[in-house]
Amino acid sequence: MIKVGIIGAGRIGRVHITSITTRVPDAVIKTVADPFLNDETAAWAKSMGVEHTTKDYREIINDPEISAVLICSSTDTHSPISVEAIKAGKHVFCEKPIDHDIAKIKEVIDALKGTNLKYQVGFNRRFDHNFESLQQAVAAGKVGKPEIIKITSRDPEPPSIDYVKVSGGMFLDMTIHDFDMVRYLAGCDATEVYVQSANLVDPAIGEAGDVDTAVITLQMENGAIAVIDNCRRASYGYDQRAEVFGSDGMAAISNDSQSSTVISNAEGVTGEKPMFFFLERYMDAYGKEVAAFIDAIVNDKETPLNVYDGLKPVLMGLAAKKSSEEHRPVKISEIME
Amino acid sequence: MIKVGIIGAGRIGRVHITSITTRVPDAVIKTVADPFLNDETAAWAKSMGVEHTTKDYREIINDPEISAVLICSSTDTHSPISVEAIKAGKHVFCEKPIDHDIAKIKEVIDALKGTNLKYQVGFNRRFDHNFESLQQAVAAGKVGKPEIIKITSRDPEPPSIDYVKVSGGMFLDMTIHDFDMVRYLAGCDATEVYVQSANLVDPAIGEAGDVDTAVITLQMENGAIAVIDNCRRASYGYDQRAEVFGSDGMAAISNDSQSSTVISNAEGVTGEKPMFFFLERYMDAYGKEVAAFIDAIVNDKETPLNVYDGLKPVLMGLAAKKSSEEHRPVKISEIME
Amino acid sequence: MIKVGIIGAGRIGRVHITSITTRVPDAVIKTVADPFLNDETAAWAKSMGVEHTTKDYREIINDPEISAVLICSSTDTHSPISVEAIKAGKHVFCEKPIDHDIAKIKEVIDALKGTNLKYQVGFNRRFDHNFESLQQAVAAGKVGKPEIIKITSRDPEPPSIDYVKVSGGMFLDMTIHDFDMVRYLAGCDATEVYVQSANLVDPAIGEAGDVDTAVITLQMENGAIAVIDNCRRASYGYDQRAEVFGSDGMAAISNDSQSSTVISNAEGVTGEKPMFFFLERYMDAYGKEVAAFIDAIVNDKETPLNVYDGLKPVLMGLAAKKSSEEHRPVKISEIME
Amino acid sequence: MIKVGIIGAGRIGRVHITSITTRVPDAVIKTVADPFLNDETAAWAKSMGVEHTTKDYREIINDPEISAVLICSSTDTHSPISVEAIKAGKHVFCEKPIDHDIAKIKEVIDALKGTNLKYQVGFNRRFDHNFESLQQAVAAGKVGKPEIIKITSRDPEPPSIDYVKVSGGMFLDMTIHDFDMVRYLAGCDATEVYVQSANLVDPAIGEAGDVDTAVITLQMENGAIAVIDNCRRASYGYDQRAEVFGSDGMAAISNDSQSSTVISNAEGVTGEKPMFFFLERYMDAYGKEVAAFIDAIVNDKETPLNVYDGLKPVLMGLAAKKSSEEHRPVKISEIME
Repeated sequence: MIKVGIIGAGRIGRVHITSITTRVPDAVIKTVADPFLNDETAAWAKSMGVEHTTKDYREIINDPEISAVLICSSTDTHSPISVEAIKAGKHVFCEKPIDHDIAKIKEVIDALKGTNLKYQVGFNRRFDHNFESLQQAVAAGKVGKPEIIKITSRDPEPPSIDYVKVSGGMFLDMTIHDFDMVRYLAGCDATEVYVQSANLVDPAIGEAGDVDTAVITLQMENGAIAVIDNCRRASYGYDQRAEVFGSDGMAAISNDSQSSTVISNAEGVTGEKPMFFFLERYMDAYGKEVAAFIDAIVNDKETPLNVYDGLKPVLMGLAAKKSSEEHRPVKISEIME
Repeated sequence: MIKVGIIGAGRIGRVHITSITTRVPDAVIKTVADPFLNDETAAWAKSMGVEHTTKDYREIINDPEISAVLICSSTDTHSPISVEAIKAGKHVFCEKPIDHDIAKIKEVIDALKGTNLKYQVGFNRRFDHNFESLQQAVAAGKVGKPEIIKITSRDPEPPSIDYVKVSGGMFLDMTIHDFDMVRYLAGCDATEVYVQSANLVDPAIGEAGDVDTAVITLQMENGAIAVIDNCRRASYGYDQRAEVFGSDGMAAISNDSQSSTVISNAEGVTGEKPMFFFLERYMDAYGKEVAAFIDAIVNDKETPLNVYDGLKPVLMGLAAKKSSEEHRPVKISEIME
Repeated sequence: MIKVGIIGAGRIGRVHITSITTRVPDAVIKTVADPFLNDETAAWAKSMGVEHTTKDYREIINDPEISAVLICSSTDTHSPISVEAIKAGKHVFCEKPIDHDIAKIKEVIDALKGTNLKYQVGFNRRFDHNFESLQQAVAAGKVGKPEIIKITSRDPEPPSIDYVKVSGGMFLDMTIHDFDMVRYLAGCDATEVYVQSANLVDPAIGEAGDVDTAVITLQMENGAIAVIDNCRRASYGYDQRAEVFGSDGMAAISNDSQSSTVISNAEGVTGEKPMFFFLERYMDAYGKEVAAFIDAIVNDKETPLNVYDGLKPVLMGLAAKKSSEEHRPVKISEIME
Repeated sequence: MIKVGIIGAGRIGRVHITSITTRVPDAVIKTVADPFLNDETAAWAKSMGVEHTTKDYREIINDPEISAVLICSSTDTHSPISVEAIKAGKHVFCEKPIDHDIAKIKEVIDALKGTNLKYQVGFNRRFDHNFESLQQAVAAGKVGKPEIIKITSRDPEPPSIDYVKVSGGMFLDMTIHDFDMVRYLAGCDATEVYVQSANLVDPAIGEAGDVDTAVITLQMENGAIAVIDNCRRASYGYDQRAEVFGSDGMAAISNDSQSSTVISNAEGVTGEKPMFFFLERYMDAYGKEVAAFIDAIVNDKETPLNVYDGLKPVLMGLAAKKSSEEHRPVKISEIME
């Protein structure tokens, strides 16, 4: 039985606590730490069977019984806590992104060197039934050699302007999932990014120095061209589609809705909207990613998404940001230097 | 070049005139006869290149230049004009049904005996792209041995009560197309019919002695069970679907709409309604059935739907009517006696 | 916290044990009883947190700490154990069917009289996201007054012949779910049943006195006509569709598949098959029905499916069997007498 | 009755001859001219009711009876014959593109100045039922303000290398239709183009100096971003989809297939491939565009696609070519200078 500590009991921390409690028999949560811990959170954690709650994450880092840590705290703490946890000999599951700063991610990479610790980054969409099935179809050669990869990724509604300001920008906050997905589907890295972006949803987003709408083109190492379209607001809900076109065919996935009910009447033939947002759409994927992390520890396997899988989408995001600002194609190698 | 006479210049007569003019290069319409012929109709016929118009269909019957006749007049005239035309040595395309009276249909059968004349009945749906493709899939063994055949056939709106009164009842007027379709898809005849019917759409239909809603179960000679559901009114348009389930799979067809446009918004994901009614939905099929008739004459082939294909659905319709009235399964053989 | 006993640790018993353990925080399983209990089952139950296992279900019946019982044992034990449990003052969740014998079901009804005990029957499909959404659409008036209700229910493969022999026949074993669904969707009872049935899948099923393919027509109290089509074998998987057509429109649900992946290539445009069978398709519904049962106890509410909801589909099944055998429409009232 | 001359009796010339003959009652074809006219073509034209055939298109230009000319000859002749025809006072329908050389198109524009002649360019897709319906939905505000416009346009198979060499390159030959469609859907012009292109389908295409796969991003005047993805070969047929995403929703169209037949079996749930290529897919649109041209003449209306609608996509195509070669975003204004 793996004893686990959870750092950060916000929205996503609670998702992972629930998953481990109900779906991961090989793990038990010993401690939940959150700097803003209050009675309500503590009571909820107890009701989920968590032994101990604290405001100080170092109680987890310093607990020799705890062998694995899930870092669900704010983005700026991801890399320093990762390094601390690794140094304390803990396996680490870290929410995305590891950091907006490449140098900080390299510190995590350095910390991992020479250890046998597992490190997994929280790109949950790889564990979604649709994306996983799509990737398997591509990997099995069902479409031949990939030539065009398309991802549509639109949020139902923009985050608060306060969040936008600290988010690192749309490319590092939102598109980063799509960058990971492009790598997953293509089975290789991108070499160059071009961004056409705009501020169409809310002027306040532009005033905060960010964009909210973009079409991002990527040259992939294997010759394929990838294209992502993003918007921070889709009136019909969370739009999460993808398509891989290749020499022998095309594989595509569409949105999930709550039910398949279709109503035909004088107005038309109407089905349900896509599920509202990531918590509805990817709840099962969150469970599977954590189960995979625990499985990697228990059975001493590679984590499905290692620290380099955490690094690469950040490089792509920084290149995208540069492309958006300088209005030219930017090579990933420009960022790595 | 086949010279053709059209008897009846109502809605369906005009459809056939248009088809022959624009789509059947081997045929030309010499004469159009309609007892209610007026200046507008005559002018329209001229504009379509028709040489001659008349109120007297016998001008067609007696014209030695005319080798083929299309009977598009009122139902009660179908069988007597068929007999007259056959006796005059004409090939005949007759709108459905040949007659509501089996004895009258037998007179047509008798008239055809010993001649080499072509006779085709106007069950247009066999020429529709969806139904034709479905039948071909079944005939090609794509579903294995047929076991359950399902047809949904609902009109967008009921006919006038005046029409209901002379229609012969829903089973002979509307379901008759579905009875033909069941035979076409199953590749065999029905042996028994059971009807569960109701008057739900408009009390006036019930007062006129008819039903407007029904589920009709048929035992087919090849062991399959067929089921048709009918309604005289579907708020979303003309509902024309079918499904054949068999030992190795299922083949199904869905409705056609004017375009594939789907709009996703806060209300849902909405596609277009099915095309409104038979003139919109089956226009192409009307053209193909007439082309097939002319082709049968020009190349001395069997018509795709002969006089027996006209007889059988009437037998099924009469059995259905009896089942509806006597509330019991009725064998087709009870009607034939 | 409700203490629960599970009687029967076969396939469906394990489903309920898992559901309660992982999804129903208000209940805990104290004892699992199974006459064929072996070490493997006992170990599995322990791993799920079950305190006690036994071969003797009376240990549950006689345990004053246990307030609710789930009866998941063989069909012939459902009604006697129900009566015993009720007499011992337990709330009861009973798998379908309560019994094949109406008199035995009436004993359960009699036992419940005067008590305040909850009784729920395991028609799990009402808790499925698709069927629930369809029912809500109909109940909300989205299709107007229901006129035609259609259910397609086909199993991927037939049960063993040994099972067929004790199953009570297809109508009581398989169609019974569809009979419940017809009641749920129509919001009323059936008054009459007509069955057209056949033995097409496997001659051994016919030799065992059963049918494997059927089209079942039902007259509903509210005037609607319902039609169910069943087959014990569908090569493409578990086919679970429904459609409600009414005066203002139609609502329909289609099958669920594992993912939305569609592959387009030279052979066509291919999506996934429906999920294989009930354990894959309805796992979530099983969880929700048990949660609803516990909720009814905890909050003293009506169970969503009471003992009469268990009785009615058996009446329909017996009427269907009679109709199949006597080849005539059979009134439900004929069975109740 | 408009007398028409057809210049060029190749594949597309024959399509227009057929359309005018069967679908455009207000026009009659007097003369068909083709430099490669042979007996077969002449006989076919006669069978379609064409009075006269010739190798010399000047017989059409010089015929005072002919008031409208359709230019369906090779691309290099489009602009000079346009100018000749205009000078002879003829209305002109010209196949796309008018020319690859902007200066030549300007000669056509100059020739039209001061005349009241109709000039229409053959961007047939605007007349397709799906694209027309999509444009109408957008124009009617169904998606709010357009933000992202996506077009997928893939041919089933590449043209011959000989054709590739004279085609002007993929952007002027194939993408030009998509450039027109972007303008049609956005309701405005593009200001900038960025191309990510590759030679993935056939090395011979690259050796001929062309690309065969591309993702093209466009900045539109109204703020929307458009993205086109092209490939010269799709194993599943002609892929013609589009989507317009806006502030209030999304409208999307999908491919047409020959029928709606879907087969479910042990391999999956399989529908038909899209229709093979443009002649199958757009036959109806070809008829409607020519009817619109004749209608513009007869009723003295604007043609739906005037000479500027012919010019703009060529500008976009030249900008795309430049972007592909120079690997940078290219403003449309760079081409116009």
